[in-house]
Amino acid sequence: MQVTIEPAGIAIDAKRGALLHEVIAQAGVALNLPCGGQGRCGHCRVLVKRGEVRRRSLLRLSKEEIAEGWALACQSVVESDCVIYVPPQEAIERRLPTEKYAATEITLPVECSPQVLPMIRAYHLTIDPPSLEDNTTDFERLRRELVRQHGIRALTATLPLMQRLATTLREAAWDVTAILEMGLYGDEYAVPRLVDIRPGSQTRRLLGAAIDIGTTSNVVYLVDLDRRAVLDSASAYNAQIACGEDIISRIIYASRPGGLQHLRMLVVDTLNQLIADLATRHGIATTDIYRVSVAGNTTMTHLFLGLPPTYIRLEPYIPTVSHPPAVLARELGLQVNPEATVDCLPSVGAYVGGDITAGVLSSNMFRTDKLTLFIDVGTNGEIVLGNADWLISCACSAGPAFEGAGVACGMRATAGAIDEVWINTETYEPTVRTIGDEPPRGICGSGMISLLGEMFMTGVVDKAGRLNRSLQTSRIRLGEHGPEYVVVWAPETASGKADIVLSEVDIANLIRAKGAIYAGFSVLTRSVGISLADVEEVLIGGAFGRYLDIEKAVQIGLLPDMPWERFRYLGNTSAQGAFAALVCPDLRREVVEIANKMTYLELSADNTFMDEFTSALFLPHTDTTQFPSVMRLLKTSPKGQDDVKQES
Amino acid sequence: MQVTIEPAGIAIDAKRGALLHEVIAQAGVALNLPCGGQGRCGHCRVLVKRGEVRRRSLLRLSKEEIAEGWALACQSVVESDCVIYVPPQEAIERRLPTEKYAATEITLPVECSPQVLPMIRAYHLTIDPPSLEDNTTDFERLRRELVRQHGIRALTATLPLMQRLATTLREAAWDVTAILEMGLYGDEYAVPRLVDIRPGSQTRRLLGAAIDIGTTSNVVYLVDLDRRAVLDSASAYNAQIACGEDIISRIIYASRPGGLQHLRMLVVDTLNQLIADLATRHGIATTDIYRVSVAGNTTMTHLFLGLPPTYIRLEPYIPTVSHPPAVLARELGLQVNPEATVDCLPSVGAYVGGDITAGVLSSNMFRTDKLTLFIDVGTNGEIVLGNADWLISCACSAGPAFEGAGVACGMRATAGAIDEVWINTETYEPTVRTIGDEPPRGICGSGMISLLGEMFMTGVVDKAGRLNRSLQTSRIRLGEHGPEYVVVWAPETASGKADIVLSEVDIANLIRAKGAIYAGFSVLTRSVGISLADVEEVLIGGAFGRYLDIEKAVQIGLLPDMPWERFRYLGNTSAQGAFAALVCPDLRREVVEIANKMTYLELSADNTFMDEFTSALFLPHTDTTQFPSVMRLLKTSPKGQDDVKQES
Repeated sequence: MQVTIEPAGIAIDAKRGALLHEVIAQAGVALNLPCGGQGRCGHCRVLVKRGEVRRRSLLRLSKEEIAEGWALACQSVVESDCVIYVPPQEAIERRLPTEKYAATEITLPVECSPQVLPMIRAYHLTIDPPSLEDNTTDFERLRRELVRQHGIRALTATLPLMQRLATTLREAAWDVTAILEMGLYGDEYAVPRLVDIRPGSQTRRLLGAAIDIGTTSNVVYLVDLDRRAVLDSASAYNAQIACGEDIISRIIYASRPGGLQHLRMLVVDTLNQLIADLATRHGIATTDIYRVSVAGNTTMTHLFLGLPPTYIRLEPYIPTVSHPPAVLARELGLQVNPEATVDCLPSVGAYVGGDITAGVLSSNMFRTDKLTLFIDVGTNGEIVLGNADWLISCACSAGPAFEGAGVACGMRATAGAIDEVWINTETYEPTVRTIGDEPPRGICGSGMISLLGEMFMTGVVDKAGRLNRSLQTSRIRLGEHGPEYVVVWAPETASGKADIVLSEVDIANLIRAKGAIYAGFSVLTRSVGISLADVEEVLIGGAFGRYLDIEKAVQIGLLPDMPWERFRYLGNTSAQGAFAALVCPDLRREVVEIANKMTYLELSADNTFMDEFTSALFLPHTDTTQFPSVMRLLKTSPKGQDDVKQES
Repeated sequence: MQVTIEPAGIAIDAKRGALLHEVIAQAGVALNLPCGGQGRCGHCRVLVKRGEVRRRSLLRLSKEEIAEGWALACQSVVESDCVIYVPPQEAIERRLPTEKYAATEITLPVECSPQVLPMIRAYHLTIDPPSLEDNTTDFERLRRELVRQHGIRALTATLPLMQRLATTLREAAWDVTAILEMGLYGDEYAVPRLVDIRPGSQTRRLLGAAIDIGTTSNVVYLVDLDRRAVLDSASAYNAQIACGEDIISRIIYASRPGGLQHLRMLVVDTLNQLIADLATRHGIATTDIYRVSVAGNTTMTHLFLGLPPTYIRLEPYIPTVSHPPAVLARELGLQVNPEATVDCLPSVGAYVGGDITAGVLSSNMFRTDKLTLFIDVGTNGEIVLGNADWLISCACSAGPAFEGAGVACGMRATAGAIDEVWINTETYEPTVRTIGDEPPRGICGSGMISLLGEMFMTGVVDKAGRLNRSLQTSRIRLGEHGPEYVVVWAPETASGKADIVLSEVDIANLIRAKGAIYAGFSVLTRSVGISLADVEEVLIGGAFGRYLDIEKAVQIGLLPDMPWERFRYLGNTSAQGAFAALVCPDLRREVVEIANKMTYLELSADNTFMDEFTSALFLPHTDTTQFPSVMRLLKTSPKGQDDVKQES
């Protein structure tokens, strides 16, 4: 069958029965599959202008649309020659506004003793050239000089390095710097490996990369391994988003033919672009990057390594591996030094990954006596409770509401996203702040928490999440999908076309998300026989943590109500942990201990979780005694919740 | 420029200045370069039928040939559009006549204690499937069961194996056999590696391959690792022969652009074909071959691994490495199990390679108290002297005369080669035996030794290598290149066209070859202060050893004159040593000891070698006291050497 893709005008041969989206992909035309091709989101709709397709699902298509010829590309198969129109796709903005929002300087989050030598080391060697009297081979000569001049007692090298050794040594006239990767567990157990040979004395510029592979965003720190310092960082959306916005969608996409390899390539491409950008910015060669540490959730780590994630999703949720083997960059296609080790940090289980063990590492909670709660809110909310003696973790399916999905006007935290809102208690008029001070385009996660907190504290919404339609304001109205609150009128938005609103449906989604996380806290603390009030410190990590307004998060019942001084922002704990594990072998070994020590509580197997979740589906909670400060504020508020006032 | 290759009729675009032989290779037309493209041998001549080429060398071309348009493809560059005729090439017969000449059963040449466990082991595991209560990952679950069920305390795996682990375990319903490669130096130093997972209980059929990469012939033994037995063997000419017959020619070819990679591919192809043949013959999957041991001279090992051999040829003759790193089969393109380790045995130096350390291993001389001389005659003659306490080695450039090159009617030891000759002392009429009893096509190495010995003992040739033209026989005549002896008249040959002869020029070549080897013996023994007569055992290895007539070899002064019971044939010691190192980790470690212990005497740096060589350029030697038995025989011979009789 011949399929013509418009408006690109590309004709391609396809088998009868081929999935439309695969044919479109073959033609090289971009088509996003936010749900990973499950036929759930309806975003991959295309117009069949001529010819026949068989629609296996009509979900999210109206009768009119079907009559017009629209079909879901992920659910329709070619039946005849046809002409398919692919509408313009929402481009995935690659660059994240790091310059404005990242901490200006990233320092090592946990202490590493200066006595601990780095894993990548450079040794300058002046070698006597071979002669008939001293005809030791090139490699054994290099090894001999490493013993004589630096006391390095053993050495290994891979074949590609061995293949260029003879030429390199002679071109450098036997005056070289050997770059060695030392065994993680000391010389007794692992033989140092020759990673590179540089001509002359070049013992500086030993670089590394610490990488956080998030489901949504990828972050790369360019690291000076010698000084244990982050030189710069860059971040971008994970290009896998085009194949599924959340983890489950990606896992489903990975199970399609070629899907896993495609996802692997997308994230590697994203990282390579970031690494190339950093290299250009600093005038360095990417081949000077000799070691890479990667932290990511278990699914992201599997996709990055090409490990099938299928069984992570199916009960009993089993990953292939928790402690992935070290892999060479060239095996993965990561464009750093091809001989660089790429080291993925270990996970605890299917839903507590290397991002969390990295987070615990960078939070220092594994060294403290204080009872500490660590939380990383992203698409999932992962929670760790414990201290130096013990660690217990759980994961709550918060859903992507706080990442801008599942909410009509939601968006990611990029320029034009509303990230903070204040509502006037008299007029109910909102004041908004946007990222980059640009005209508003939508609401990001922190903006939603801020908005919902304000709406609740000013009585715009009640504890069940219902809008108070009796208030004297045109901002509250009945919209197409039920009651809604207008945050920005259309003329003031970036597009100028549609109002930015938060509907009761959106609010219900947000309440479910925050309820799941709070229920996680409750079950986790109860499982070890303590109450939330016993927690001495609450550490907030993950990319989300940087923008979170703790006051508002407590007001909506996302975070527990406790003195503010117990909360601490940590920023991107996943990337910071990868950085710590990259520059300090002691800390790298510590992550193994953390992963092995941490127990995992499977909430889906826990009956009390459902009860706690149901109780948390209110603002701030059914049990208001858990939120005393919020209650006090509501009582003193001029226009607070009537029912709270009645209770008092 | 357009170059048309005839008779194939292939037209190909070429740059002005491109080498003809490279253009011909691009067109996919076979053209042998026996000297590796040095312009020395004249065998790559082609006819320029139209157009212009520039001849950088005219060596080996007669005036008439140049006038006709002949040119050396390796020395001529394209100057215009042209038409080139490539004459039929001597096909390199791939298959060697192993069935007829190999030992019917190959047994382990040295003792390996039955207590020593093999490196490749199979462990059957019945694994409890994961559950919510026991959600250990696939890999850690496998590792846990290896500890519980078999006491294997650690495990590693490469990424490709990890990538298929989840599917394999589930398809096999958690009942699997894990194939492990144990660390060579025990569990303390190296972690066992998962090489394969088979469904169900399949602990048998653990195969390996022991490979001898000779400059001329490649041999593969298919090995049952469990039973430590050779199941079968196959051999073929090294396809690199098309790019140079001897080591120097190959090294020169390797320095051309793409030359090294091409040579690497040729030998890998040769081995893959042999492995495929063996697999087909035994109905096995090549993926059941889990470990490969390779013995080859230093250059062959370098070419196989893609290491540049350039500096092996240039003084001071330095290889890249003596103890090559273990490499995975997939990195080399060797078609066995992609996860199989390919282990190249260590060499001593540029001219004493893994074939010799393997030879010493398989000879058992490293365990004996007897003063032993080990000799491997191929293109080079490598000699090792010593016993359990010490080993000293040298290499003599014998040249390829004994391999059939450098002698007008010389050929390799294949069907139709004359391998034994008897000369009637009255009539000087020869009787010949050929390989396969086929009509004679030429003379192989063992045939030449036999022939030269007979000619000398019957007085056809004198001690200086001159033919006795006064004898009453039409067999001795003045040929085109001087005096010659007719071994077979044209009508009795396979071609029926030309007589098979041995000329004085050929004889001089043979005497130089045997003289170099004998001089090697002399210098080596003298260097340690002993005489040849002190040697208690002479072991003859290498592919050559199997056909050698010791009596004749002593008569021409190739081997020292000592009681026959001191000589022992060992067959292909290189392949046997690879086999021993493959099946027994103790013996594999022993090869390292042998390589480290063995000293190397560089003959080119030794003044006495030239003296000894000059003295050995006679039959059997200038110093006849070194050959008492030959002298005795000559004196009693009815028609022996006149001057010997005069001496008596």
